[in-house]
Amino acid sequence: MSYALTLNAGSSSLKFGLFALGADEPELSANGLADRVGGDARLTLKGADGTKLRDAVPIPAEGVVDHHEALVAALHELEDHFPGAQIDTVGHRVVHGGMDYSGPTVLSPAIIDKLSTLSPFAPLHQPHNLAGVRAAMAAFPQAVQVACFDTAFHRHHPFVNDVFALPREYYDKGVRRYGFHGLSYDYISGELARIAPDLHAGRVVVAHLGNGASMCGLRGGRSVASSMGFSALDGLPMGTRTGQLDPGIILYLLQQEGMSVEDIITLLYKKSGLLGLSGLSHDMRTLEASGSEGARQAIDYYTFRARRELGGLAAALEGLDGLVFCGGIGENSRLIRERICNGLHWIGIEIDDEANAANAPVISRPDARVKVMVIPTNEEIVIARACAALGVRGA
Amino acid sequence: MSYALTLNAGSSSLKFGLFALGADEPELSANGLADRVGGDARLTLKGADGTKLRDAVPIPAEGVVDHHEALVAALHELEDHFPGAQIDTVGHRVVHGGMDYSGPTVLSPAIIDKLSTLSPFAPLHQPHNLAGVRAAMAAFPQAVQVACFDTAFHRHHPFVNDVFALPREYYDKGVRRYGFHGLSYDYISGELARIAPDLHAGRVVVAHLGNGASMCGLRGGRSVASSMGFSALDGLPMGTRTGQLDPGIILYLLQQEGMSVEDIITLLYKKSGLLGLSGLSHDMRTLEASGSEGARQAIDYYTFRARRELGGLAAALEGLDGLVFCGGIGENSRLIRERICNGLHWIGIEIDDEANAANAPVISRPDARVKVMVIPTNEEIVIARACAALGVRGA
Repeated sequence: MSYALTLNAGSSSLKFGLFALGADEPELSANGLADRVGGDARLTLKGADGTKLRDAVPIPAEGVVDHHEALVAALHELEDHFPGAQIDTVGHRVVHGGMDYSGPTVLSPAIIDKLSTLSPFAPLHQPHNLAGVRAAMAAFPQAVQVACFDTAFHRHHPFVNDVFALPREYYDKGVRRYGFHGLSYDYISGELARIAPDLHAGRVVVAHLGNGASMCGLRGGRSVASSMGFSALDGLPMGTRTGQLDPGIILYLLQQEGMSVEDIITLLYKKSGLLGLSGLSHDMRTLEASGSEGARQAIDYYTFRARRELGGLAAALEGLDGLVFCGGIGENSRLIRERICNGLHWIGIEIDDEANAANAPVISRPDARVKVMVIPTNEEIVIARACAALGVRGA
Repeated sequence: MSYALTLNAGSSSLKFGLFALGADEPELSANGLADRVGGDARLTLKGADGTKLRDAVPIPAEGVVDHHEALVAALHELEDHFPGAQIDTVGHRVVHGGMDYSGPTVLSPAIIDKLSTLSPFAPLHQPHNLAGVRAAMAAFPQAVQVACFDTAFHRHHPFVNDVFALPREYYDKGVRRYGFHGLSYDYISGELARIAPDLHAGRVVVAHLGNGASMCGLRGGRSVASSMGFSALDGLPMGTRTGQLDPGIILYLLQQEGMSVEDIITLLYKKSGLLGLSGLSHDMRTLEASGSEGARQAIDYYTFRARRELGGLAAALEGLDGLVFCGGIGENSRLIRERICNGLHWIGIEIDDEANAANAPVISRPDARVKVMVIPTNEEIVIARACAALGVRGA
């Protein structure tokens, strides 16, 4: 049996999944996480049913563990638990595909070089993603390496949703509204086609609310607009990221507060969002459990901005037939869904409190104009599917 | 008879108006403009009926003309045409009133000092506004000086529309969503109360589309939200300003393109917007007359972003009863109004082509759910009214 390995390499983590290919749909065998990569890294491995096979086991190393050593440790564990599983294809989550890549792509050294040139567009993510690619090429020199881009699903936006009002030369050199979380939206679009084809054919906003968060406007299952643009900062507020921010604030911080670019990046990416507003935590569960004024205001802001972005995306779609919640917060927080939806009666959204409390697949009232759904997302399977499709052809 | 002088001092211009007080409503006697202040300045003066009394007359000076000399020249002309008009009150347009000023304010040296401390929030405007104040105090040491702030009308926004998702200390030190064009919105709100009281009581978006541009969400005649936030950059694209911009772009320009802060300010304020996108002109009339691809794309983007911002403001208002166009483009461009409205059927906007072509006061169809109006704005009269109200009390 042929297997695919999916990899998602972050700055200090490596997520991985092992999928058996052959059936129509790739089948998960196990997945896991190496965290604290670059420090005293640990490895966790779970079976297909979620059982922990290994739990935060230290990865032995002389000095710090890099992505390559983390991958070797992960492969060692997989070999122990799935002896003889032959990995023919490795699928990588790569945050940025730039202007050209609008689908999964078999990697070659030339393409990897080209993807490296996109690092300036995503300096906090792209280099780590490519470190994962290099580690996998060293470990599996014979395997087909496939890149799945977070930007790819959005690459067919109409021009008005791709450009900023800057001189044209910036558009030409790649300052565009890429949008991210494309693997998640791709999955949700596929699920809509399967379980709600009428909605798939219509105008839908998908709210991917995780530690990162964005919204995507779908028409006929394709991305028309996103709340995120050039970077992973814009749009909805996130755990520690600002979301929408007046550009004049950055000029103010530089000129009047004398902050360095590095300090501003740390402020906007690491200290803002729910954490900054609440002064308490980046984690919505902590904020929901807290009775503090800061937590309440952070939740107010979060849900208000979600409604405001949804209004903007409805305008981009010229109306709204459906709203889908996904991501950790979107799938699990009845409070956040309720707070967002209760301000959206004007657009035809009315939720059923019982269904919402149960995280049911459909949480809108039967007679409401707009259908509201909760669909657990699965970015890993999207990568595994690309491996199944391209690994065969590429092998 | 007592008169009020209204002043609007920009970086290289001084607009002024002479109003007779005493009747219920201040009555315009004349208004005018000194432009090219700081260089070879010229003065134009028009009567109440728009007749040019003086047309681009050079202002004599040794060296360059500053705001004080421009004001003295303007007063000289006014004295020639309105001998004996006694100016007891001078009203100033001041862009920024900071966190505290939510209405017109009689100026004292202490208050002027306080307003100077707001210059870091509006470095391109506030210092020039205050230069106009100082010139007027020198010219009229006995007059009451009144400041009318562009931010004041928005100072009662709910917290979610006043804050950004940054650590709380930034909110406390004044990094807030001020919103601008408040004098224009104040005027439109008053006109709605007079000519369309039902709408005034409801949920209305006002689109102030001039060389600067923003939108304001009104509920019950009060500002609830604005497309502009901390600076005059955010929201709608403008003649030469970007409007909404992913904050990551500024970090990219600094880090990857090595641009200086000064160059970025020039790019975002002076070279972007309609000018940057079209590569042709900042002037909508020029773009409408041009058949070029760049002009078409700039108009596409402008009207699309206006619809998207309107969707966001409708969400902030939780629905929409009315839309009002004002400002040079809003009052005069049938094409732009048509292009914005034709994408908004989903929210209940349907315009009457004939009424729109005629710049009629009401341009929506009688049976449309949302009423669409064109109301010429008048920021000067709002300043004159403040002079009438505060000059008497303050004198």
